[in-house]
Parts: sequence; structure tokens; C-alpha cells
Amino acid sequence: MSSCIVPVSSDSHFSIHNLPYGIFRPSASSAPRAGVAIGDFVLDLSVIAAAGLFNGPFFSSPSCFSESTLNSFMGMGRPIWKEARSTIQNLLSGENPSLKDNADLRKQALIPMSEVKMELPASIGDYTDFFCSEHHTKNCSKIFRGEYALPPNWLHLPVAYHGRASSVVVSGTGIRRPMGQSFPPTSDGKTPPYFGPSRRLDYELEMAFFVGPGIELGERITIDNAIDHIFGLVLMNDWSARDIQFWESQPLGPFLGKNFGTSISPWILTLEALEPFKCEAPNQEPPCLPYLTETSRFTYDIPLEVAIRPAGEEKQSVVCRTNFKYLYWTIAQQLTHHTVNGCNVRTGDLLASGTISGPDKESWACLLEQTSNAQHDIVLEHGGIRKYLEDGDDVIFSGCCKGDGYCVGFGTCSGTVLPAS
Amino acid sequence: MSSCIVPVSSDSHFSIHNLPYGIFRPSASSAPRAGVAIGDFVLDLSVIAAAGLFNGPFFSSPSCFSESTLNSFMGMGRPIWKEARSTIQNLLSGENPSLKDNADLRKQALIPMSEVKMELPASIGDYTDFFCSEHHTKNCSKIFRGEYALPPNWLHLPVAYHGRASSVVVSGTGIRRPMGQSFPPTSDGKTPPYFGPSRRLDYELEMAFFVGPGIELGERITIDNAIDHIFGLVLMNDWSARDIQFWESQPLGPFLGKNFGTSISPWILTLEALEPFKCEAPNQEPPCLPYLTETSRFTYDIPLEVAIRPAGEEKQSVVCRTNFKYLYWTIAQQLTHHTVNGCNVRTGDLLASGTISGPDKESWACLLEQTSNAQHDIVLEHGGIRKYLEDGDDVIFSGCCKGDGYCVGFGTCSGTVLPAS
Repeated sequence: MSSCIVPVSSDSHFSIHNLPYGIFRPSASSAPRAGVAIGDFVLDLSVIAAAGLFNGPFFSSPSCFSESTLNSFMGMGRPIWKEARSTIQNLLSGENPSLKDNADLRKQALIPMSEVKMELPASIGDYTDFFCSEHHTKNCSKIFRGEYALPPNWLHLPVAYHGRASSVVVSGTGIRRPMGQSFPPTSDGKTPPYFGPSRRLDYELEMAFFVGPGIELGERITIDNAIDHIFGLVLMNDWSARDIQFWESQPLGPFLGKNFGTSISPWILTLEALEPFKCEAPNQEPPCLPYLTETSRFTYDIPLEVAIRPAGEEKQSVVCRTNFKYLYWTIAQQLTHHTVNGCNVRTGDLLASGTISGPDKESWACLLEQTSNAQHDIVLEHGGIRKYLEDGDDVIFSGCCKGDGYCVGFGTCSGTVLPAS
Repeated sequence: MSSCIVPVSSDSHFSIHNLPYGIFRPSASSAPRAGVAIGDFVLDLSVIAAAGLFNGPFFSSPSCFSESTLNSFMGMGRPIWKEARSTIQNLLSGENPSLKDNADLRKQALIPMSEVKMELPASIGDYTDFFCSEHHTKNCSKIFRGEYALPPNWLHLPVAYHGRASSVVVSGTGIRRPMGQSFPPTSDGKTPPYFGPSRRLDYELEMAFFVGPGIELGERITIDNAIDHIFGLVLMNDWSARDIQFWESQPLGPFLGKNFGTSISPWILTLEALEPFKCEAPNQEPPCLPYLTETSRFTYDIPLEVAIRPAGEEKQSVVCRTNFKYLYWTIAQQLTHHTVNGCNVRTGDLLASGTISGPDKESWACLLEQTSNAQHDIVLEHGGIRKYLEDGDDVIFSGCCKGDGYCVGFGTCSGTVLPAS
């Protein structure tokens, strides 16, 4: 299986063990379609489908790969996903020689990644953001309430809120610094709020998953079949304007401090690709209620990084190293909880983890935590200091699982801060 | 203009001055299409369009009325909306005799309302819920914090949160009592939460508007052109499971306590229809920031009612009488605030007012307020007492503006509580 008909370096995120799905345009003027990342190439699945290479038993007329989103494919469920993955893996390994031995088809189907334009991979009906990191929750509590503690509900349910679906954008999209109302932090309580560009623009390193087959209103997903409703994961930056957020969010939660933009990585890694990186999830004490109790509890070991590249700077400075495995609530628990009240979910819905902070300061996954809300600076290794983000900063998330001689990675999720206008 | 080619009683909500838009099926098996309510009939706009009666100058090939949502029409903007309204009004008044004098066309285009099935009128990309009633906010504060007061931000901005778009349903859809986690109200702080059907199911009387033409990410809508982005209004029931909501919502706001179902009335009243019912909006002190300051500040005088009809009971008991005009923040301010940070909005987005409570107890627009969170009962005039809703309760909202010898009304927004399952 390590062999591949295109060259893949051992540190490429896109080995033949990965095969993440995305939506791309071969050139700016061509129509979007589905592809799979392999080394430095994108395999055009619409071409593979048109060549008749998805030939069953279950998945034999995959027009879904010519569509502008992955929703149709995501709605088909795991047996289809597994068959498609197996077909693609066999073509790319050469075990099935149909692609390997057909130079014309190879030329048509394999497009250098440097030439393609990536698009948002799905039409997102609803986007939900969870709050699953114990360390992030406690750090926030310490900063705002002076107490390193969890809210009373936190160990009993995965806290979440609804975010904005319309402003989820694909990696590479510039993020405009938002305007808004804020309250002077030194206020005596009588000073009126001011209006202007956010002065406390932050990133939040998160991961998110796409819902595969959905359910109807009034139904619920049980904990032991939740995984069958999850298509795959992406990196996510939940950009946050802390000054706007803190002024607005009593008593109903974040709103304009978040909904000006949320970036996701273009490539969706399937749970099949992540299977070798399964690991134990944190022990839960007190035990959760039966509806959230997993027969087989697991998460994934996914090392994650945040880097900042200031405007005009060539080098990225890594400012955070953390891991998906730190999350207290698993993706199965998130989806199960979300539907326990009969809330419907639809194919393409996006459920995010919340900021993925770990125990050590290096793993705190937003500037709010790293600078204690601008109480002190962080120093960028290649020059510069930051309390919060500055205009022109490129914020780059990456995530990569290391196998034995190969990688299964997410590529990057990046965005540059554009000045307010 | 009072004359109409179909009989309309003086207390019908659907006079020729109204002409609200909806999506309906003439019979259960027929395809959904757009219609306008008139008296006890629905005018099938796809039939009117096919007959060539929308003939310009601007709106001359309205295939949009054969679609299953109003989104295309809603995206066209006010000049088109005005022309379409004028065409429909002229046909129904007989001023244009094309419908009046064509018996075949009348038979085909005018369908008894009792025969049609109403559908959700739009595809809703994002749904946002505001918190615009001063009295509701203060009543909630009194119940939960013992203090009849507003949060510090409340007079400066219209507080809001994102709700669930997938579970917005049309009036008449049964609402399943949700299951979920709650915390015993008498707890000593050590008792674990329990799981089961909500014991504190409530309604919230709200109104909501649909966005017409949207804007792109990074743009904003200014206060003086906000109205041009608003298509029309509906009644809305923001069903709320108070026990689930109160346990889950620290620190990020409501989630499963709300997203199991949100009902809207099927007929969207345009701002043109509401024009005669414009009135002054409450004075704002302190003055709001310039971006929220209206050159011409107004709202609408829309009397609203809530009635409960217990299972097996013939008569409805009115439990609340309130008015849309009590809201402190106008619809123009809501939409302007929503986009001031560059958040995009799309045609069909739904923005709701929050619970519309007024100054008197009779106008408190949810049971939470009326019973002080089950501290005491309310008595239904036709029998029964309630702290919160019981299975089988039909909750019926209505709203109707009274003109001189005619009405402009919303019909009803209703839903029956189904037992948990």
C-alpha cells in the first residue's frame, strides 16, 4: 500500500494512506468538482468517475463528484465511503492498473496542487461550536472570573452554541478585522461603549467534523452509532474579536465577536484515514449520563500547530503546539448530545470542537489564553511581539498524524488579517 | 381598493390591503408553489404567472412563483415586490379585469384555503434570535437574579444569538416535548443532573423578518437602507424547554433548550402591507451609537395574542395580549447591527425579535414570565391551570392590524405539544 503511482515524500501530509476529499477548480475559470489530495497533486474524481472506474458493487454512478459540493457523497454513508476509498487507493497504488497504465487519463486526472483553486467543500446548513477542552474552559474562567474552575454543567454535557453558517470560509480567504462596539476595559461602569475596529482580534485553534447522513426532527442519534453519521474532520479557525465578544455576550453568548468569519481547511480527512491514530480519550469523572456513555470510547492522536507570519516576514513563528486528543468530549458525544432533544441534523452540518488547549502553556490555543487577555506579550521566534493579532498577520494552522514512514495530515488552514474598512 | 372579486369579511386577516406571500400545495400530492392569501382563498401565483399577467415593466417572467420557496422572489428587491403587489391588487380588485372576467382562470387560480397545505415559505440559511423587549429582559433578570434590571450592554446594542435553522417549521407542525439534561431546582449543588422529558416546556411569542437582498462577507448594511433588505414579517414561536435551557446555557447561551423546534406562520406580510400601521418606536435613552441611529425611526402597531387550547377542549383561552410596538430595538436596528462587523446575510435569513413582552402582566409573552418560572399558576379562562405547557396543548399565536373597515393580519402560528418519545 505504500507504493503510489505519483511521488509522495515521507513528510507529505497527503500519502496514499490519507486520501482526503475536497472541492477544487483545476483553474480559476473551470467548474468546481470533487478531488482527493495525493502528494503534490489533486486527483480529479469527476474524471475518474467519467472513465467508469467507480464500478460498484454499491457505488456505480457517482455523478456526485461533478457537483460543486461534497454533500451528496457525504450523505451516502460509510459503506459507500469505504468502497470509494478502496477504489481510489487501488487506482493510486497501481494495484488496479487502469490509471497507472493510461497516460492520457493520468494527465487529465492528476492536476498539480499548485495550480488548483480550493473551494468550501460542503454546503453547510448549520454550524455548531462546542467547548470541549477542559484546559481552555478553566483558563477562560481564570481570566474572567479569577477562578481556575469549570461551570457546574461542564463535566455533565458538552456545552455548545450555534454559530454562523454563512460566514464559514475556506482556508486562504482574507479575514477583515471587524468593526463593532466594545467597552473600555478600564471603565468605571459609566463610560459609554465605543465603536471602531476590534483591538483584540484572536484566533482559536479548533477542529470540526462534517455530518454525513442526517436525521429528521424528533429523531436522535445514539452514542454507539454516532460515528456512522460522521464523514470526516477539518482544521478550523474560529476567529474571535475579544473586545466585541465580551461586551455583547451577556446573557446569550457570542455573536458578532465570532460571526465575521470562520476558516476551515479545504481537505476533509475521513475517519478511515484517521483509524490508525485512534487513542484513548480522557477518563470522565464523574461518569456521564447513560445516553453519553460510550461502549468503546476513543479519540484521535492528531498533533496540531499554530504559526503566525507577520506581514512582510518570510518565516512562520510557531506559537502553539497542541493535540486533538486533549478534548474531554469526543465527537461521538458531541453529535449524540446535539440530537438528544430531537434536534435534526443535515448532511453537511459542521460541528466544531472549541479551542483545543492542553495542559501546558505551549498548548494554549488562542492568544486570549497565551497573553491572559493582553496582560502580557508573546514573543515570535522570528521577530515581533503580540498581545493580539495585527493587520497583515497570516495565521496558519496545521495538523499531521505521523505513521511509520508516512503522514496523514490536514495540510493547513490559514487566513491573513485584513485591515478594517 | 376595498372592492375585491372574492368575498372578504371585514374581520378577515387577509383583505385586499394585505396580500401576504406563502408557499402552498393545492392538494397534498401537488407540487409546492407561491400564493397570496385573500379572504378564505389562496391565489395561485404560478397560475397567474403562467397566464402572462405579470407583464412588466420590471417583473415580466416570474418563474420564481413556481419554485418551492420564495427565496428567488425575496432576493429581487423592493421595486419588483411593489410591482408584483400592484399587479396582484389590480387583478383582485377587478381594476384589471383579466382575472375577474375569466371564469376558467378564476377557478384554476383561486383555491379554498381549507383545501391547501401550507409549507415553510423560504429556505432559511441562518436564523438569528434577538432579545429586544425591555420588559422581557427585566422580567427574566428578576426571576433569575432577583433584580429587575438590564444587563450593562442592553441599552447600547440589540443583544442576539444564533439559533438553529434546520428546526424552523411551519405553523401546524406538532412539537415533540424534548428529552434532555436538567438540574433539580432545589439542588444543594451536589445532586447530579437528571435525564428525561422537559418538565418546563414554554412558548415565546415573537415576530421575525425575512431578509430580502443579502450582502457579501465584509460588507455592511447601513441603518438608513436596512428596510430595503427586509422582505416581510411572520409570527414566530420560539419554543423553549426552560429546565434544559437553564442547565446548559452557562457560559455560551441557549442551545438544546431551543433548537428542538421553532414555528413560524405560513404567511409573510410585506412592509408595504404594514405601512398604514407604522408608529413611533420607543424613545431611546441613552442615545445609541451613530451606526444605529435612525433618520426616521419607526415600528409597527401590531396587536398580538397567545391562546392555549388544551387537548380535547374546544375553546381557546387567551393568555397574553401584547403588541409588536413595545420592542425597544427596531427591525432596521437589528439588521444593521447584525452586519456592522461585516457578517454576511443571505436572502431567506430569518431574524427574530425575542419575546415580545409589554409593561402589563397580561402582555408578558411566555409562561416563564407569567408564572415566575412555575412559582405560581395561571388559570385558563375556559378551564385548566398551567405552570408550563402540558402534552396536547395547542398553542396559538395571532396578530392582526385593524384598519378602517378591514384587517391586515398574520393568521395564526400554532403548534400542538406532542408527548416525549
